[in-house]
Amino acid sequence: MTPANSAASASRAPAVQDVADAELQKHRNMANALRALAMDAVQQAKSGHPGLPMGAADIATVLFTQFLKFDATAPDWPDRDRFVLSAGHGSMLLYGLLHLLGYEDITIDEIKRFRQLGSRTAGHPEYGAAAGIETTTGPLGQGLANAVGMAMAERHLAATFGKDAVDHYTYVLAGDGCLMEGISQEAIALAGHLKLSKLIVLFDDNGISIDGPVDLADSTDQLKRFEASGWHVTRVDGHDPSAIAAAIAAAREAPEPALIACRTVIGYGAPNKQGTAGVHGAPLGAEEIAAARGALGWSEDAFDIPCEVRDAWRIAGIRGCKKRKAWEGRIAALDPETRAEFDRRMRGDLPARLDQAFAAYKMALAKEAPALATRASSQNALDVINEVLPETIGGSADLTGSNNTRSRDMAAITPDDFSGRFVHYGVREHGMAAAMNGLALHGGIIPYGGTFLVFSDYCRPSIRLSALMHQRVIYVMTHDSIGLGEDGPTHQPVEHLASLRAMPNLMVMRPADAMETAECWEAALRTGDRPSLLALTRQKVPAVRREFSADNLCMRGAYDLAVPERESDVVIFATGSEVEIALEAKAKLDAAGHPARVVSVPCFELFDEQSPDYQASVLGTEPVRVAIEAAVSMGWERFIGTDGIFIGMHGFGASAPAADLYRHFGITTDAVVTAALARFTEGGA
Amino acid sequence: MTPANSAASASRAPAVQDVADAELQKHRNMANALRALAMDAVQQAKSGHPGLPMGAADIATVLFTQFLKFDATAPDWPDRDRFVLSAGHGSMLLYGLLHLLGYEDITIDEIKRFRQLGSRTAGHPEYGAAAGIETTTGPLGQGLANAVGMAMAERHLAATFGKDAVDHYTYVLAGDGCLMEGISQEAIALAGHLKLSKLIVLFDDNGISIDGPVDLADSTDQLKRFEASGWHVTRVDGHDPSAIAAAIAAAREAPEPALIACRTVIGYGAPNKQGTAGVHGAPLGAEEIAAARGALGWSEDAFDIPCEVRDAWRIAGIRGCKKRKAWEGRIAALDPETRAEFDRRMRGDLPARLDQAFAAYKMALAKEAPALATRASSQNALDVINEVLPETIGGSADLTGSNNTRSRDMAAITPDDFSGRFVHYGVREHGMAAAMNGLALHGGIIPYGGTFLVFSDYCRPSIRLSALMHQRVIYVMTHDSIGLGEDGPTHQPVEHLASLRAMPNLMVMRPADAMETAECWEAALRTGDRPSLLALTRQKVPAVRREFSADNLCMRGAYDLAVPERESDVVIFATGSEVEIALEAKAKLDAAGHPARVVSVPCFELFDEQSPDYQASVLGTEPVRVAIEAAVSMGWERFIGTDGIFIGMHGFGASAPAADLYRHFGITTDAVVTAALARFTEGGA
Repeated sequence: MTPANSAASASRAPAVQDVADAELQKHRNMANALRALAMDAVQQAKSGHPGLPMGAADIATVLFTQFLKFDATAPDWPDRDRFVLSAGHGSMLLYGLLHLLGYEDITIDEIKRFRQLGSRTAGHPEYGAAAGIETTTGPLGQGLANAVGMAMAERHLAATFGKDAVDHYTYVLAGDGCLMEGISQEAIALAGHLKLSKLIVLFDDNGISIDGPVDLADSTDQLKRFEASGWHVTRVDGHDPSAIAAAIAAAREAPEPALIACRTVIGYGAPNKQGTAGVHGAPLGAEEIAAARGALGWSEDAFDIPCEVRDAWRIAGIRGCKKRKAWEGRIAALDPETRAEFDRRMRGDLPARLDQAFAAYKMALAKEAPALATRASSQNALDVINEVLPETIGGSADLTGSNNTRSRDMAAITPDDFSGRFVHYGVREHGMAAAMNGLALHGGIIPYGGTFLVFSDYCRPSIRLSALMHQRVIYVMTHDSIGLGEDGPTHQPVEHLASLRAMPNLMVMRPADAMETAECWEAALRTGDRPSLLALTRQKVPAVRREFSADNLCMRGAYDLAVPERESDVVIFATGSEVEIALEAKAKLDAAGHPARVVSVPCFELFDEQSPDYQASVLGTEPVRVAIEAAVSMGWERFIGTDGIFIGMHGFGASAPAADLYRHFGITTDAVVTAALARFTEGGA
Repeated sequence: MTPANSAASASRAPAVQDVADAELQKHRNMANALRALAMDAVQQAKSGHPGLPMGAADIATVLFTQFLKFDATAPDWPDRDRFVLSAGHGSMLLYGLLHLLGYEDITIDEIKRFRQLGSRTAGHPEYGAAAGIETTTGPLGQGLANAVGMAMAERHLAATFGKDAVDHYTYVLAGDGCLMEGISQEAIALAGHLKLSKLIVLFDDNGISIDGPVDLADSTDQLKRFEASGWHVTRVDGHDPSAIAAAIAAAREAPEPALIACRTVIGYGAPNKQGTAGVHGAPLGAEEIAAARGALGWSEDAFDIPCEVRDAWRIAGIRGCKKRKAWEGRIAALDPETRAEFDRRMRGDLPARLDQAFAAYKMALAKEAPALATRASSQNALDVINEVLPETIGGSADLTGSNNTRSRDMAAITPDDFSGRFVHYGVREHGMAAAMNGLALHGGIIPYGGTFLVFSDYCRPSIRLSALMHQRVIYVMTHDSIGLGEDGPTHQPVEHLASLRAMPNLMVMRPADAMETAECWEAALRTGDRPSLLALTRQKVPAVRREFSADNLCMRGAYDLAVPERESDVVIFATGSEVEIALEAKAKLDAAGHPARVVSVPCFELFDEQSPDYQASVLGTEPVRVAIEAAVSMGWERFIGTDGIFIGMHGFGASAPAADLYRHFGITTDAVVTAALARFTEGGA
C-alpha cells in the first residue's frame, strides 16, 4: 500500500463521502500543514517525534476547527476549553496548532528552533514556555490525570460561580503509552466515579509503541476497560473527519466522561515508514520527507504554508472571539462582589483577611501552647485557612482521618454535587497529585491533598511536575518518620526528606509544633509559584514555640529557637518531632557547662534563600555541631559540616511502638548529650 | 442483623448446605481460629488491622486447606505454590495461618509479640522475618505485581527445567486498595497479555476502604476491568467455602489468569463493627472482642486454640508432604548436570565461568578502549554476561533500543513461549520493577530491566522494596543527565542520583566508560543481597580506563583514576560522563602549576563500606576540592566538604542539544579550571 493509497483508503469510508469535497480538501490541507510542520521541524532539529503529529493531525484539525472553544488572541480566557496533549512527545502537533492558529508566542522562527536552547518549543511541551500550553507533558499518563483535575476544577467553579462564568470542556489527546501507565487507571477510575461528563479523551490508537506493535506488550481492550469505570466509549477511524466530529459531538452530550478511540496510522503520510515504530521518535530523513510531500500532495518548501491554508487556520484561531466577548459580558454583569472574587481567585491572589486570621490563630496558639501531633495541628490550621480561603480544595488518598486534611464543615465533592471542597481521591496517590496539578493549572483553586510521607514515592513523578511547572500545590504528608510506630519499615520514611529536598523548586517543610505548622501553612499558601510539602507527625509533640511572633519565623527556613545566656559551644539543629529532643539536650548540656544553641530548621529551601549574613548567623561557629532528624543524614552537612554529629537513621526502620524505636535507633536526648560531651573530652572540639 | 445471623445467612446459601455439616463446622472452627488470633493479637498490640483477617478467614481457610501446595516443614521447597498477601495490612491473617499450619518461625509467642520490636510478626509482613512470608507487602498493589513476576518465573523455569521440576500456582489475596493503585493496572494488563494462567487473584471484595464505603471514591466494575485485560473472572460469596472452592478449582483450569471476587464482610464476626471502616485498622476493644467470641461461638481464651482445631490446621500444614517427596524424587532423577544447574540457580550462586568471562572481556576493553555511550557498553557487557549466566531475564519498559537491555540472540518471552529471556514490559515502569522483585523472590532468576533514569520516579516504591527485601534486582537506567539533550527537563534527571543514593541498601552506580560499566555489572551481579541501579549515558564517552586490572576497581566505590607526578593540590571527584571533564581539567591544572588528582566515584555506597584507611587515602588532603556531576550537589559534601567547588546542576535542565546544555549550565572543563585556580588567587586554598 503506498501512502497515497493509504490516504485515499481512509477517505473511501462512506461517512467521509458525505462531506462536501471542498470541505474535505480544506480539512486535508489543514491537517497536512500540521504534518508538514512536524516533519520539517523534527528534521531540522535532528531529533523529535514526527509519528504522533502526523498520525493525529486529522483528529486535532477536527477538534480545533469545529469544537474547541478558545481565542488565540486571548489565550488566558478563563472559560476556554482546555486541551491537554498527554502524549507530550508529539509536541510538534501542539506547536504546529498554536502557530497556525495565530498564538503569538509560537512564531515560525520558534518552530524552526524546535528543541533548541532558549526556544519556546522544547522537546516536550513546557507550561509557561508559551501561551496555549496548558500543562507540561512528556512523562506519560500525567496529562490525562492533569485533565481530570482540570475537569474537576471546571465542575467546582461552575457550582460556585455559575455556568455563566464557568462552562467549558477539557479535551485530552492520549496515546498507548499514557494508557499503559498505571496512573491512567487512577485517573480513569476517578473521572468515571465523579462522572466528569465534560472530559473527553481522544485516544490516538495507532497500535505502535517504541518497541514495536503494542501487542508485543499489551492486549487490553481499552474500550471495555474505560467502560468498566463508567465511561462513554466509542471507536472511529481517526483519519475520517466526519466520523471524528460525530464522535466528539456525541461525547459532549454523554452524561459520562468519554473515550473516543481513534484508529490512526502513526506517521500518516510517510510512505515507507508510516505504521511502524520507526516513525515514532526520529526524523524521517530528507528522502522520506520528500516522498511524504508527494504522497500528501504537499508541494510547499520546508516550513512554508500555502496562503489559503494559513488563512483557514487563522480564521479557526479566532473562531471563539464572539463567545469570549459574550462571556466577558456575562462576567461584567455579575454583581461586583462576585466578579471581584472571581477575578481574585483566577489571578491566584490571597484575600487580605488571611493575614488577620493567621495573626489571631497564632496568638491563640501562643496562649494555649497545645501539645498535638503536627498532623492535628495541620487540621486546626486548616479550620482557620479554609474558613477564609474559599479556593482551597482538600483531599486525601483514602487516609482522611489519618492525614487530617478535612477541616470542620468541609463537604465532600460527589458526582452529583461539586460544590463541596473535599475530594475522596481513593487509594490513588499518583492520580491525586496529578489531578492537583490540573486543579492548580486550571486556576481559581489552591489544591492540597494528603497521604503518608512514605507514599510520596507513589506520586513523585507528579510532585516533580508541580515543581517544574511552578504550581502552588500543597502536599500534606503525615506519618513522617519511625514515629508512626508499629506499621513498620514499609510505612516509615527514612530517605524521603532527603530525596524530596533534592528536588529543585519544592519547599519541603517539617514543622516542630502547632505554631510552626501554622507558619508553614502560611508559607505554602503565600508561595504562589511553587509546590510545598508538609511532613507531619503521627505522634504528639509539645509546643516548642510559645511566644507570639508577628513575623513568620518558618519563612526564614531556619532560626534560633533557644539561645543560652552564656556563649554557646554546641549548636543543635533539628526539625519536626526531633526539636523536642534538641531542647531537652540543650538543657542537659547547659547544665553540664557546655551551653547549647538550638536551631529549628523547618525548611532547607527557604533557608538557602536567606541573605548570607542571616545564614552565617544561624549557622554560627560553635565547635560542636549536632543535627537531629529521624531520617538519613544526607543534606545535613550544610549545617554541621562533614565531621558534625548526626543523630538520626542509618537504614530502614522497624515495627514497634514509637518510643521503643526512638530508643532502639538511638535518637534520644541522652544520645545527643553523650555524643556532644564526648567531643569535648576527646578534644575534638 | 446480628453477627450470628450474618454468619448464619452466609451459610444459608444452597451451595453451603451441600457440604456435610461436620465439614462445614470444621471449616468454620478453623476460620474462626484465624479470626480469634487476629482479634487477640491486634488487641494486645494496641494497633493493627483486624478487619481483613476476620473478613478473609474463610477464603484463606479454603485455599490453605484444599488447594495451596506447600509443606510447613519445608517452607523453602522451590516448587511450592506461592501465596502473596498483597493487602499486607492484614498481616495477622498470614501470621495466624503460618502459626496454625505449624511453620516453626511463627510461634504463639511471636503472635503475642505482634508489632513489637524484634518480633517476626511486624506490622506488615516482612520478607526474611519468617519462613512462609513470600514478599514484603503493605504498600498497596505491590504484592499483586510481585505475584505477576513470580508467575512469570514459574513459567520460565518450567520451560527451562521441565514441569517435573517446576509446576506451581501463584495465589494472591488483594483488597480494594490494591486494585485502586495504578500499579495494579500495569500488573493486570501484563499478566493478561502473557496469559499467566497459573496466577489466581482472590479479591477480598468487602466494599470498605479506610475513608468508608469504597463507593465514596470508586465505582469500577472490577470484573469487567480484569476481563478487559483477558482475565478469567468470577464472583462468589466469600463466606461460602464450597463456592470459594469451586471458583478456585475453575480458576486453576482456566487458560487465563483468574480473578475471583469474593464478597466478604470486613471484620466478619464482630457484631457491632463488622462491615464498617471502623474495623479496618484499629483494635476492636475488649467489649467487642467478647461480643465477637459470642457471635462466632468461640469460647476459648485469648490466644488459645481448641485442640481439635489446632490438629486440623497441623494436618493441613503437612498436607503437601507427599507431593514434596515426590518432587524430590523427580529432581533426584534428573541428569546430574541439570540437577546441579537447577540447584545452583535456586541457591542464587553464580557460575565459576563468570570470572573468566569478565576477565577476558576486560582485557579486550583495555586493548580496544572503545568510545561508547555507557548504555551501549552495558549492552556489550550483557552480551558477555547473558552468554554465561542463563538465569538473567532482561527487559525494558518499552525502551528496549534506548536502554540497550536486549543482548545478542536474546529471545522475547511471549504468551505462548516462556523459554525466552527478554520481557517487553510495556510502558509500565512500576509494574516492571515490582515484577522483577517477584522474579528475584521466586528464586532461580536474576532480573534486570531498563527505563530512563528520570522514570525511576515511576517505580520508586518498588525499588524501595527491592532494597528493603535485599533482592538482587538490577535497574538499568539510561539517559542519566542533561546529556540526553533535546527531550528537555521532563526527561532529564537532576535530583535522581541524590534521591536514590539517599535510599538505604541500594547500590547506585554511575560508570564512566566501558571498563567501569563492565565492573559495575560485575558488582551488581556479585552482590546477592541487595539491588543495584546503573545510571548510564545516552551520549558517547571516551575510554578513561585503558589498562587491564584484575581487581574490580569499581567495587571500591571510588578510586584514584589519575595521579600527578608532583604532589597534587587539587583533587577532582567525578562520575560517569563527567569523568572526561575531570581528566581534561586535570591536564590544564597540571599545566598551570596546580597538579590535580582525579578520583572516579562510580558508587557512593561501596565507597562508604571500604576501610577507613582506604577512604582517607582516596579523600586525600588537597586544599582545593572539586566534584563534577551533572546533577544536584546533595551528598557531595562527603567528598569536598561544605566549601568545596561543585560543578553540576542547580535546578532543572532544558531542551537543547547536549553540548549546548553542558555549556549553558557551566559544566565544562574551563569552568572547573577557572573555579579551581580562583581558589589559589583568592587565597582560599
